Amino acid sequence: MTKHNIILQPSGSRGQVEEGQSIRSAARDLGVEIESICAENATCGKCMVLIEEGRFEKYNIDSRRENVSPVTAEEAAYFGRRPKLLKDKGWEVGQVRLSCQCKIQGDVLINVPEESRGNKQIVRKSATQREIEIKPSIRKYLVTMSPPTLERPIADWERLAKGLETSIGLVRRGEENLPRWSDFTVDYQCLRTLAATLREAKWNVTVSVWQDKEIMQVQAGYHEESYGAAVDIGSTTVALYLCNLRTGEILAAESEMNPQIVYGEDVMSRIQYTIEHKDGLEKLHKAIISTLNKLLKQAAKTAKIKVDDILEMVLVGNSTMHHLLLNLPPKDLGLAPFVPAIHKSVDVKARELGLHINPAGNIHVLPTIASFVGADTSAMIVAEEPHKQDENWLLIDVGTNAELVLGNRKRLVCTSTPTGPALEGAHVEYGMRAAPGAMERISIDETTLEPKYKVIGVDGWNTDHAEFKGLVKGICGSAIIDGVAELFRAGIVDSRGKFKKELKSERIRQGESGWEYVIAWAEETSIGRDIPMTQQDVRQIQLAKAALFTAARTLLKRSGLESPDKIILAGGFGSYIDKEKAMLIGLIPDCVLDNVYAVGNAAGDGARIALLNIEKRKEIESVTRKVERFELPTDPEFQNQFMLATSFPHMSEPFPHIAHLIPNRVADPLAKKFMEK
Amino acid sequence: MTKHNIILQPSGSRGQVEEGQSIRSAARDLGVEIESICAENATCGKCMVLIEEGRFEKYNIDSRRENVSPVTAEEAAYFGRRPKLLKDKGWEVGQVRLSCQCKIQGDVLINVPEESRGNKQIVRKSATQREIEIKPSIRKYLVTMSPPTLERPIADWERLAKGLETSIGLVRRGEENLPRWSDFTVDYQCLRTLAATLREAKWNVTVSVWQDKEIMQVQAGYHEESYGAAVDIGSTTVALYLCNLRTGEILAAESEMNPQIVYGEDVMSRIQYTIEHKDGLEKLHKAIISTLNKLLKQAAKTAKIKVDDILEMVLVGNSTMHHLLLNLPPKDLGLAPFVPAIHKSVDVKARELGLHINPAGNIHVLPTIASFVGADTSAMIVAEEPHKQDENWLLIDVGTNAELVLGNRKRLVCTSTPTGPALEGAHVEYGMRAAPGAMERISIDETTLEPKYKVIGVDGWNTDHAEFKGLVKGICGSAIIDGVAELFRAGIVDSRGKFKKELKSERIRQGESGWEYVIAWAEETSIGRDIPMTQQDVRQIQLAKAALFTAARTLLKRSGLESPDKIILAGGFGSYIDKEKAMLIGLIPDCVLDNVYAVGNAAGDGARIALLNIEKRKEIESVTRKVERFELPTDPEFQNQFMLATSFPHMSEPFPHIAHLIPNRVADPLAKKFMEK
Repeated sequence: MTKHNIILQPSGSRGQVEEGQSIRSAARDLGVEIESICAENATCGKCMVLIEEGRFEKYNIDSRRENVSPVTAEEAAYFGRRPKLLKDKGWEVGQVRLSCQCKIQGDVLINVPEESRGNKQIVRKSATQREIEIKPSIRKYLVTMSPPTLERPIADWERLAKGLETSIGLVRRGEENLPRWSDFTVDYQCLRTLAATLREAKWNVTVSVWQDKEIMQVQAGYHEESYGAAVDIGSTTVALYLCNLRTGEILAAESEMNPQIVYGEDVMSRIQYTIEHKDGLEKLHKAIISTLNKLLKQAAKTAKIKVDDILEMVLVGNSTMHHLLLNLPPKDLGLAPFVPAIHKSVDVKARELGLHINPAGNIHVLPTIASFVGADTSAMIVAEEPHKQDENWLLIDVGTNAELVLGNRKRLVCTSTPTGPALEGAHVEYGMRAAPGAMERISIDETTLEPKYKVIGVDGWNTDHAEFKGLVKGICGSAIIDGVAELFRAGIVDSRGKFKKELKSERIRQGESGWEYVIAWAEETSIGRDIPMTQQDVRQIQLAKAALFTAARTLLKRSGLESPDKIILAGGFGSYIDKEKAMLIGLIPDCVLDNVYAVGNAAGDGARIALLNIEKRKEIESVTRKVERFELPTDPEFQNQFMLATSFPHMSEPFPHIAHLIPNRVADPLAKKFMEK
Repeated sequence: MTKHNIILQPSGSRGQVEEGQSIRSAARDLGVEIESICAENATCGKCMVLIEEGRFEKYNIDSRRENVSPVTAEEAAYFGRRPKLLKDKGWEVGQVRLSCQCKIQGDVLINVPEESRGNKQIVRKSATQREIEIKPSIRKYLVTMSPPTLERPIADWERLAKGLETSIGLVRRGEENLPRWSDFTVDYQCLRTLAATLREAKWNVTVSVWQDKEIMQVQAGYHEESYGAAVDIGSTTVALYLCNLRTGEILAAESEMNPQIVYGEDVMSRIQYTIEHKDGLEKLHKAIISTLNKLLKQAAKTAKIKVDDILEMVLVGNSTMHHLLLNLPPKDLGLAPFVPAIHKSVDVKARELGLHINPAGNIHVLPTIASFVGADTSAMIVAEEPHKQDENWLLIDVGTNAELVLGNRKRLVCTSTPTGPALEGAHVEYGMRAAPGAMERISIDETTLEPKYKVIGVDGWNTDHAEFKGLVKGICGSAIIDGVAELFRAGIVDSRGKFKKELKSERIRQGESGWEYVIAWAEETSIGRDIPMTQQDVRQIQLAKAALFTAARTLLKRSGLESPDKIILAGGFGSYIDKEKAMLIGLIPDCVLDNVYAVGNAAGDGARIALLNIEKRKEIESVTRKVERFELPTDPEFQNQFMLATSFPHMSEPFPHIAHLIPNRVADPLAKKFMEK
């Protein structure tokens, strides 16, 4: 048997292969995966490679086009249909080949272009930059069958299943445990149209297989791409990402308000609604389903695909959103002992939920961990992978409710705490959502006690504009943290959060509901009233941050840790707040500031990762089963800890990493002592 | 460790067991299964046994009640609630015990009553009498959980799954590969009501598990029985059997006309209807579903159970009925090359088909073999088991279409042939269905050429009644065979089926459409007209029987056989016809008459067997995959064979087993020669 030297670039893999072997098959033997969808039919073009010509001294070979088999009629036809591709890439036929067709007849150096490489990956921006391999639950295969005859009148399904076995065998040659035809199942709704599709397609179809097992879609002719949607259902906002399941690319990102808001702003009030109204659950369920359908339609339009070609959705949300999505009564989530209906992930047919993707499509909902630690937290773990770290990480998803996960590869603990809506700008006198006209940054000069602020929709600080008028409407979440931190840093409130009435500034005054500090005068606003931060606002933040801090401290204590190695702030809120100021008011535990990361919508990212990589689903299932959950205790000692945590930054905790920011004016000697510890 | 002798009756199993072991556990060690549903909770009472007292010389033991542990409070409570049972059986507490509670402390002889024995069986009357073990796909387990607490707030599903694992472990102790809690899945609709049921039940529920895997129903408290329905969908009649899945008992048998009949009498015309009408398939599908729902409701009422407690249905029918039931377009069943949508069995949720059993319930449809050899034939194979025989059996299901299966454990071949409706009494001049007023038997005196007949709804022959008037309406299928056979035997028609006009009888006359023989005079009928059998009727039967015979001969030839060892006639028709007369006209091949069996509704029986024994489903799946199917060829040689087969009994086949019945008057010398061969 004659053998030849082949080199594969850019990996540099090389070896000797037998004469007559196809390049794709030879590459696999050398550990280089080349894409293919069409079962080596010269149809999909996914396996294109370039034959490089010349003398490669490093490898001691002469590589020439003549050292591979001549261009076949099928290849010529394939490239003939794609003049634009050849022109754009500057390739000529003969140089570029379909590796499934092109056979080795001598030494060659082969370049595998990016788009032909198997095992595609997406890059995830997170606390650790890392690559996520694309291994979707759905794969497509081109299946070409011989039509039935009187002599071979085998049924449509069996004919398809056998053809599929052959196709998978060709595409994934060499893999172990490839599925056998008799193991395939077919979705009932897909079976209903099978006969018509096969005949319309003249026995040449693309089959979408879920988890190497269930046939979900059979399309006439050749189809390359498959699609899925990842969804993060927040109590306030629903975000949907439509993805190409082969490349991982996000084709459309759409979001809408959660329509359930009209039935209750927070999860508890929505749970209450389902208890008090006989049709409450049905209404809340239908509301979210209808919004999801709207988002799916929009996303499909943006991506120019049919919703029927979306074959899977992965959804995450807190336990209440999870229950309402699945039409499960959420009552027991809100009543002691606070029990979800199910922890483990749910797979259910799209048609069962009335979700308008392909009716045979699968809806995967990530596992819940506890009543107040839901599938969104599972998704955050998928995205950040604390369970793969040696360091101890503290993950915090801040919202009306905060979920916290602490630990490393050995042990993960979690808890949750209500933080109230203050951190999101609600229940604060002039609080508002992050929208044009909202203050998003506040800074106070500690000498003059004069403020400056930034407003969403306006460049720079208000003081950069000669005359700043009529633009401010209120204060959003991030500016509230900023404002309180600055009030404290400038010494306007003391470490107990009390206004220092003795300071000389016209901005510090007795307002309608107590002492306050005016940030914007009426003429700067669109509401025609002064916008102050009030004693009441400061108190709200104190309660919220004390709850969060105490929860974090409880987890640290349970894990025998002084402080986390890294803090990961997830959620929109985490991205907007100034981490230094968050630490200054004691919202998060003390930590090297560089080790505090804001990772954005980790829940949404986790949903997307689980959509694109089936192994991540198994992984999170087993991780969530092991996460230990702590209920924050209700005993007096805990209450005491909570009270100590209401101080800025804390009554009994050292904050060495931000100590330099803390004003000497801090009055409380006890606090000062701890600060310097 | 002290050991004691125990004897179990009626099996006679005996052995030494350890002191303190429960009787149920000890029995299992000795290979005797005792029922239990309640996880040894002293709740279900399924495991009752009797402690026999006395000296048993044969075993050399003294058996006494004192040799087992005293009656527990739980047992006393159980029997206290059942005074009627004790009275009816004549048992007293202490003599009767719950074997899960009662522990061995000395030698005992134990009687396991019929109802407590595990591995229940039903007896099937078929060509071979045999017992069918009851192994339904659904089993019930009592699961008692500790309620969730703040310290152990594990979700409802996981709590149930773990409890179920424990229960199964207790009930089926010693079995291998028992399912683990993490392997269980839950039907989505069942999950929706789980939280409410668990709480209503105070954490004490009965769980119905499908195939050791999926939880389909969770009921508050203790429930013993589970139910399923077996259905045979004939083109004309739909028969439903509601069964107790634990005992195998038929609780109700209901039947209705197939409502699809209004869209076409035979399968071809129904297929045609779906092709010609856009909503044709939907109409035919909805018609059968609605009839099935009606039957389910009736059966549940008869059995005094709720339809919601029916958890599985097994359905069979010919390929067209199969497709229409599943809402699959039947078009390609009727067009060359005659291909079904699917061979293998289908499992689909009841709610997907709109069948009103428990929405989580499973609908199992047996596999099809070919376009005209459907799930009814698969069911006939399940019932008769030709694939387990050493002898070669010929199974024939006669209807408008006849399906034939021939073979033994080594090889099975099958085919089908249209026989026309004549054998069922249609398209025969005075043909009618088997109903009051229909002649069901005809006999003709070969000397006087006078007939006598029996009528459905009237005892004895018409000649037994002094004056027989106004009762006859027509001739049903069985009497048509009788009539034609008698015409032949009495020499009124010759072996080619032609009337012998020269015979002297007022009953033989030239009628409107040719020669005929009057069976009933007008005054004997309710229609006021003479009822004859016409030349045309004889011709219809000749064509039908030739088709059937040629099909059988083809299979025999392909299998290298002269004749079958046994002939099994399935279907209602097979039960009514006189097998001797069927052979006399050459409807079935020659065979020892004692080896011709009529087994009734084998398809319905097969459906019931598959409902009650899950292993039979796997078995038929693999058997049907191996059955070889022959299309009856369309070549001239075959046509010639068909023409030869139109003669009575056949132009070129010997019929030694009924030769003595064949009149010497048979005119055809060629036929006569073959007859004597």
